[in-house]
Amino acid sequence: MAKRIITISREFGSGGRFIGEEVAKKLGIKYYDRDIIAQIAEQSGFSPEYIKENAELSPKKGLFAYAFSGRDITGKSIEDMVYEAQRNVILDIAAKESCVIIGRNADFILKDRDDVLNVFIHGDMSEKIKRICALYRVSEDDAVKMMNDTDKRRSTNYNFYTEQKWGMAGNYTLSLNSSQLGYGMCERMILECVNH
Amino acid sequence: MAKRIITISREFGSGGRFIGEEVAKKLGIKYYDRDIIAQIAEQSGFSPEYIKENAELSPKKGLFAYAFSGRDITGKSIEDMVYEAQRNVILDIAAKESCVIIGRNADFILKDRDDVLNVFIHGDMSEKIKRICALYRVSEDDAVKMMNDTDKRRSTNYNFYTEQKWGMAGNYTLSLNSSQLGYGMCERMILECVNH
Repeated sequence: MAKRIITISREFGSGGRFIGEEVAKKLGIKYYDRDIIAQIAEQSGFSPEYIKENAELSPKKGLFAYAFSGRDITGKSIEDMVYEAQRNVILDIAAKESCVIIGRNADFILKDRDDVLNVFIHGDMSEKIKRICALYRVSEDDAVKMMNDTDKRRSTNYNFYTEQKWGMAGNYTLSLNSSQLGYGMCERMILECVNH
Repeated sequence: MAKRIITISREFGSGGRFIGEEVAKKLGIKYYDRDIIAQIAEQSGFSPEYIKENAELSPKKGLFAYAFSGRDITGKSIEDMVYEAQRNVILDIAAKESCVIIGRNADFILKDRDDVLNVFIHGDMSEKIKRICALYRVSEDDAVKMMNDTDKRRSTNYNFYTEQKWGMAGNYTLSLNSSQLGYGMCERMILECVNH
């Protein structure tokens, strides 16, 4: 089956977002990353700022805090409601159009479709740190902290909602080390798989 | 740096060995899989049968049994000695010639070289079971048992000796789902990375 939706999961600093954007441009299809936030906000009733901080990265304070967080009468926590809204938005987008979706457990949320190519982009520590320093104008120490913190929150969120393990090759059709292959080569390999 | 050594780690039934053999043929380089066993046997003094059963798959009875297994005066277990011999054989091969090496933690053993392309081949459960049934002429139930048992032993061995986690995308330059991409496409993508 031809692939018309590409999900890109990525380590922080690996260039996965950049690669996804380039792939979308080359295929002439939509690219969804932060733009999803407004739609999740609208569906859930929470502010875009709240969604930005929480949707991909909750449970922020870890699973212990999550266990004691506020719930509605159905037992759903606020985190669960935001996640449910995110899930619905991603399912709607996928039903509607060809696109690239960055992060947000889209690989798992769309697992029942057979027109989805799931990609994981990762990289070597030294290259990722260099990229983060340049992009965010921070020191190496701060880059390491940002990277560890973001990837830990992404993986906690993924492992919690999908019952799979973030970063395991088995979750994705294609996993690429962007430091060793280069961004251009990663783009070409993804395009080849789409056109395959 | 040009890649002249390709390590292929693989899930049982994913066709990783077959793909590796084809890549070696197309590149006109040596292919090492079971042929390594004779060399490990020679170096370690154990029989080829013993190596075949233990080198990639120990600690066979799990880490608890390993903790109480026989040791020489340096504290090395028999498993450690076999592993050390395997490690030396792989380092020697890599120093000597371009080649494809299947399994045996070669990705980790060769981690200090920069002319190595590390590949992980995995696949969808249903496809792997079909392949195992056809190759080994066993029932579906037996295929599932063979698959679970072999992958569990491979991952226990890998996790124990490398302190990395078997099957995590981050260990490999390239991870491919052979059921979704097809064997031919996997070969082409590996060759592209080598020639890159």
